[in-house]
Amino acid sequence: MNIDELNTPAALVDVGRMSRNIERMQRRLDSLGASFRPHVKTTKCEPIVRAQVAAGARGITVSTLKEAEQFFANGVSDIVYAVGMIPTKLPQALALRRQGCDLKIIADSIQSAEAIAAFGRDHGAVFEVWIEVDVDGHRSGIAPEDDLLITVGRALVGGGMNLGGVLAHAGSSYEYSKHEDLVRIAEQERAGAVRAAERLRAAGLTCPVVSIGSTPTALSAERLEGVTEVRAGVYVMFDLVMHNVGVCGTADIALSVLTTVIGHQEDKGWAIVDAGWMAMSRDRGTQRQQHDFGYGLVCSKNGAPLSDYVLSSANQEHGVISRIGSVDRDIAKHFPIGTRLRILPNHACATGAQHPEYQAIAEDGTAETWPRFYGW
Amino acid sequence: MNIDELNTPAALVDVGRMSRNIERMQRRLDSLGASFRPHVKTTKCEPIVRAQVAAGARGITVSTLKEAEQFFANGVSDIVYAVGMIPTKLPQALALRRQGCDLKIIADSIQSAEAIAAFGRDHGAVFEVWIEVDVDGHRSGIAPEDDLLITVGRALVGGGMNLGGVLAHAGSSYEYSKHEDLVRIAEQERAGAVRAAERLRAAGLTCPVVSIGSTPTALSAERLEGVTEVRAGVYVMFDLVMHNVGVCGTADIALSVLTTVIGHQEDKGWAIVDAGWMAMSRDRGTQRQQHDFGYGLVCSKNGAPLSDYVLSSANQEHGVISRIGSVDRDIAKHFPIGTRLRILPNHACATGAQHPEYQAIAEDGTAETWPRFYGW
Repeated sequence: MNIDELNTPAALVDVGRMSRNIERMQRRLDSLGASFRPHVKTTKCEPIVRAQVAAGARGITVSTLKEAEQFFANGVSDIVYAVGMIPTKLPQALALRRQGCDLKIIADSIQSAEAIAAFGRDHGAVFEVWIEVDVDGHRSGIAPEDDLLITVGRALVGGGMNLGGVLAHAGSSYEYSKHEDLVRIAEQERAGAVRAAERLRAAGLTCPVVSIGSTPTALSAERLEGVTEVRAGVYVMFDLVMHNVGVCGTADIALSVLTTVIGHQEDKGWAIVDAGWMAMSRDRGTQRQQHDFGYGLVCSKNGAPLSDYVLSSANQEHGVISRIGSVDRDIAKHFPIGTRLRILPNHACATGAQHPEYQAIAEDGTAETWPRFYGW
Repeated sequence: MNIDELNTPAALVDVGRMSRNIERMQRRLDSLGASFRPHVKTTKCEPIVRAQVAAGARGITVSTLKEAEQFFANGVSDIVYAVGMIPTKLPQALALRRQGCDLKIIADSIQSAEAIAAFGRDHGAVFEVWIEVDVDGHRSGIAPEDDLLITVGRALVGGGMNLGGVLAHAGSSYEYSKHEDLVRIAEQERAGAVRAAERLRAAGLTCPVVSIGSTPTALSAERLEGVTEVRAGVYVMFDLVMHNVGVCGTADIALSVLTTVIGHQEDKGWAIVDAGWMAMSRDRGTQRQQHDFGYGLVCSKNGAPLSDYVLSSANQEHGVISRIGSVDRDIAKHFPIGTRLRILPNHACATGAQHPEYQAIAEDGTAETWPRFYGW
């Protein structure tokens, strides 16, 4: 199969671009002296994770226990589940550990820590727990200077659990677009996580792992002293949000949606395509950034951006392509019915999740089906 | 299984509400003298479509040929594929017809009509084709007064195809919130489709079917003279967008996402839950409506709205619940870790699509798994 034979819409992965993205991140972290633990929530796809591990990744990060189960079945054992643990999910986590999975879980409250310790004691299990640290007020975690950090650490260790480290994610890095801001937030992420680890150690607790990361900070950090590992996910595909943040060009974006023109409204300058929000996702992540790409940037079927055209609106299985700035009344001539186009997505994690599989496009243009999974 | 035993996040269907929604629409269209062809893109779920057919639906509408294949395999034969046909999808459509599926396809251009006729002749097949009519400038279709309508009709019939009818969808009805506006747009949809059919008949062409519909117009039309069938999809679940349009109350919304509180940021008044955009979708359909519900309206685990609380932001597997208007510094007391909540969605079609299955909750609180599918 090649691009002209594929059913549309389809999620295409440009394997050359993906491989270069994997190499770029791995080399960068090698040179900064930290190990790399990619977040597989972006793709949930075995051949892609295999390529990340082959390039040098040490373990993976997951956002659901289903991801842990699937990738453990695929031979990856060193896994951190980077969403706060709750009691009802502990049996699933325990089952993974009992099968030999080196699963780490996280906590950021005394209630969670005590629940994990109580469950562990009841089942004769020692969980490795990392404490989530809040370095930018973005979401979850305990601030590095908050004494709750020590209280939670003691509750875990006193409860018989293994305190394995601290984990931070500077999610606010997505809100910037200047290199100096990204360098600053990367240093804030590093310093906050290292400070939390130092405070735990000063309180007599162990804290071997200091884990930080996001794609923008991982690509902007100038030093990683005190950090043992970095996590990042979307870098493997990149997308228009990351382009606007300034950490990739459009020529680095490895994910696109192949679509076909199905009709026109010529007086409005619209070409109607068969990629709606079901194929692109409803993610409008570029809406409040410096460059709003609508639901995506239109490219030729071979991937060359047609920079004046975006997917300006989307229904479930219909998308509207229009020209920015001026109505293209010749759009039916430019893109006749049957024309194949690629759309670069705002957000690779959200767009990928709409598809049961990727079509991996090799340098010679041939397509291979790479399944991905979803659900919990 | 019941609500306390289910894994979270989970897509819950309140079977009692769903059944009442199905009955309401079917009774309404029965009384208006039109047959009903529900759009199954909302749920892609066999038990739900079975309930719609059992209540009196005559055939179904689909947005992908995969839906046609799956529901034909489940015993539904009368199917209209309501997205403009393109040449590359004709082999798939032909395969369905040759298996005995009474599949109807649509066209709104001379290029499409000629391509369908040429493919049909080459393969000894007569496709039933409906012409898509544009009644509100919303998306695809030919305006009722445009002579292209007659040209396309003649191209189909002259090419040996069966011109089966006209199809219109007043998608702009989603933009209104007053009953009188909905009545007006419903009449505009009816009158435009009937006028297109009359013009085709006056030109000597057959046009047995006049198909219109959307959930808001189907629930607002005061008369359907000249219309043979109505299509609607989201009515089976309803959602917050439909609540804002004014065609349902929150107590009619049959779809919700069950979630668990995993942490807090008390000074910000945040409860963090395990339903992020992966569980809710990125749909922010209420953003520009009269009442913005964020990513959804928070309810107790039994479905009672806690009207001051919404899912105010969402990452992939994390959602933030906060109180509208004032920071709830006691949110950790109101919603301790482990608390189960339901979130009513902005858009039932988008939220359902994120889940491999529904958990159908019966009146006695027991849950049954109803699989749904995705992809193309």
